[in-house]
Amino acid sequence: MSTAGQVIRCKAAVAWEAGKPLVIEEVDVAPPQQHEVRLKILYTSLCHTDVYFWEAKGQTPLFPRIFGHEAGGIVESVGEGVTDLQPGDHVLPVFTGECQQCRHCKSAESNMCDLLRINTDRGVMISDGQTRFSKDGKPIYHFVGTSTFSEYTVAHSGCVTKIDPQAPLDKVCVLSCGISTGLGATLNVAKPTRGSTVAIFGLGAVGLAAAEGARISGASRIIGIDLNPSRFDAAKNFGVTECVNPKDYDKPVQEVIAEMTDGGVDRSVECTGHVNAMISAFECVHDGWGVAVLVGVPNKDDAFKTNPMNLLNERTLKGTFFGNYKPKTDLPSVVGMYMNKELELEKFITHQVPFTEINKAFDLMLKGESLRCMITMGH
Amino acid sequence: MSTAGQVIRCKAAVAWEAGKPLVIEEVDVAPPQQHEVRLKILYTSLCHTDVYFWEAKGQTPLFPRIFGHEAGGIVESVGEGVTDLQPGDHVLPVFTGECQQCRHCKSAESNMCDLLRINTDRGVMISDGQTRFSKDGKPIYHFVGTSTFSEYTVAHSGCVTKIDPQAPLDKVCVLSCGISTGLGATLNVAKPTRGSTVAIFGLGAVGLAAAEGARISGASRIIGIDLNPSRFDAAKNFGVTECVNPKDYDKPVQEVIAEMTDGGVDRSVECTGHVNAMISAFECVHDGWGVAVLVGVPNKDDAFKTNPMNLLNERTLKGTFFGNYKPKTDLPSVVGMYMNKELELEKFITHQVPFTEINKAFDLMLKGESLRCMITMGH
Repeated sequence: MSTAGQVIRCKAAVAWEAGKPLVIEEVDVAPPQQHEVRLKILYTSLCHTDVYFWEAKGQTPLFPRIFGHEAGGIVESVGEGVTDLQPGDHVLPVFTGECQQCRHCKSAESNMCDLLRINTDRGVMISDGQTRFSKDGKPIYHFVGTSTFSEYTVAHSGCVTKIDPQAPLDKVCVLSCGISTGLGATLNVAKPTRGSTVAIFGLGAVGLAAAEGARISGASRIIGIDLNPSRFDAAKNFGVTECVNPKDYDKPVQEVIAEMTDGGVDRSVECTGHVNAMISAFECVHDGWGVAVLVGVPNKDDAFKTNPMNLLNERTLKGTFFGNYKPKTDLPSVVGMYMNKELELEKFITHQVPFTEINKAFDLMLKGESLRCMITMGH
Repeated sequence: MSTAGQVIRCKAAVAWEAGKPLVIEEVDVAPPQQHEVRLKILYTSLCHTDVYFWEAKGQTPLFPRIFGHEAGGIVESVGEGVTDLQPGDHVLPVFTGECQQCRHCKSAESNMCDLLRINTDRGVMISDGQTRFSKDGKPIYHFVGTSTFSEYTVAHSGCVTKIDPQAPLDKVCVLSCGISTGLGATLNVAKPTRGSTVAIFGLGAVGLAAAEGARISGASRIIGIDLNPSRFDAAKNFGVTECVNPKDYDKPVQEVIAEMTDGGVDRSVECTGHVNAMISAFECVHDGWGVAVLVGVPNKDDAFKTNPMNLLNERTLKGTFFGNYKPKTDLPSVVGMYMNKELELEKFITHQVPFTEINKAFDLMLKGESLRCMITMGH
């Protein structure tokens, strides 16, 4: 019997309070309204951004809330006006969207949609300012328009990407956020040529995805930089050819890298969000042609500072958001890269837990033990 | 009678002391050595960089010296090993060179030749560390490898560009430095598309050349920013469609521009060298696709500072040197743009003086009255 148009009661992992373990609850999920779709989530993984907003140390807390924004699922039903998705489609929900109408969506260069750009403060749907989740009639807030820590969720159709139904959702699910962010930073923005040298700052999941992009591009040297040397061994699996721990030197790491590379690397990608790493990532690229790409999100009041001559000597500094991928237009081709074995995803998925043990995924990430922990909904 | 191999005695404008009027003297010009050519200069123009080093306020003074680096001339003779130039060739000497052997010359992206990159401290030829100029047997120093304030000069062949002999040297002479710098910053680096909006910071000769590049690119709005409103009328001749004086507002000019353009311009080009203008030029470009290009040379200890989120929102910051033109490879095509009337040069040449009155050119520039003053050698 079709559930379309009906409220669905299902299990969701509700964050009732900042930093407290999620609680698996029975919640009600309202039908999708205009331009929305309701998804059955099959797999979801945990990203630092979920943890950051769950801890609520740096922003206005909004609770109760259902987190989760890396996931793979199937369309259960669609609201009015949705023409590009239908029940049964295999999809990735994405934390940022593509309205396909605004200046950004119409620009070949931008993926920062005016309507559906990430908004971490908003906990409701944009069409009516309401939540689609409730328990005992009381609203539970959404997170970045996805809230995938639930067996069913509702998202704006502009934030839902239809993908190849042959693609295994328990693998390509990680392309909803972090892996695409790092991969696209290299492939779409840094664009190293075959044989070039690339420095990657930060060897977490995003940085390793950036390294994977450099490996796919045929970079001859991929230098990984991290303050935590326990990450160095695993990094080799992602194409990293040599590792540098800035703590091992008494000079700035950009100088160390310049000495290793006869004047600097061709490209660098910064994935830590620390402002000093950003400065090092910029200053370690070669004059004449070097390009540095910033990915990691800084603290609110950080200032990026450099001597302007570093720029005038023909270095380029760029930032990227979600690897410059337009979620609906571009993600299907990234799934395609996985399907044709160009892109390796298995190595990012270091752990697996059933939905009932979702709090273990949080523990693993807080201890720095996992890259990605796959959470199986198990309908 | 050929002068090849002979010392040539000719007139040169010698700077004997910092900031003191040049003196027209009879000097001896030695024959070109290996990889050098001797040029008969027909026209030369004055650029701010000559004045800056003549004033010697910010660097180690080196005198007596022959300044001058924007010029057009004819090859008089060539030294050993020079195969791409011969007597009679029409040429532009350039303050920076192209050895065609180093990593920079071999890179499609760079014009910052390792061997012949501008060096303002050096006053001698690189082959033997000697000067080719002397008076009464005492050396007179070179300036940036060109020293065009002389009826004859010697330059490294990598700093001499052969051009179309039909091109009028009294016009294309200005392509040796400032005009190409501004033009290339727009055409080669900012690359505005047809119909886009461009902000130009600084409406001197370099900034107006950047505006000329935006006009040629088909930009629909070219916003000129300058603290000196007396420059606004003339700027209209270079495609500038509207002018902004930051002094007229009590908020940062980047905010003024963002309001004028629904969020920011598509491209900006900074030609003043003031660090605050650099920051404004960067922060006034639109998120998602904006590109800011820095041209103006800052003070040594300036720091460029911005909130990294301005970068992460997909803005690009680049610097350029000599408009990213490779002097020997690329300048002939810029001369071609003038010959086919795509590029207008006459409007940059606001004054003319005979060589004997070269100090008038300095006066005009110091008073801010000239864009370019053409100096006719009058052999």
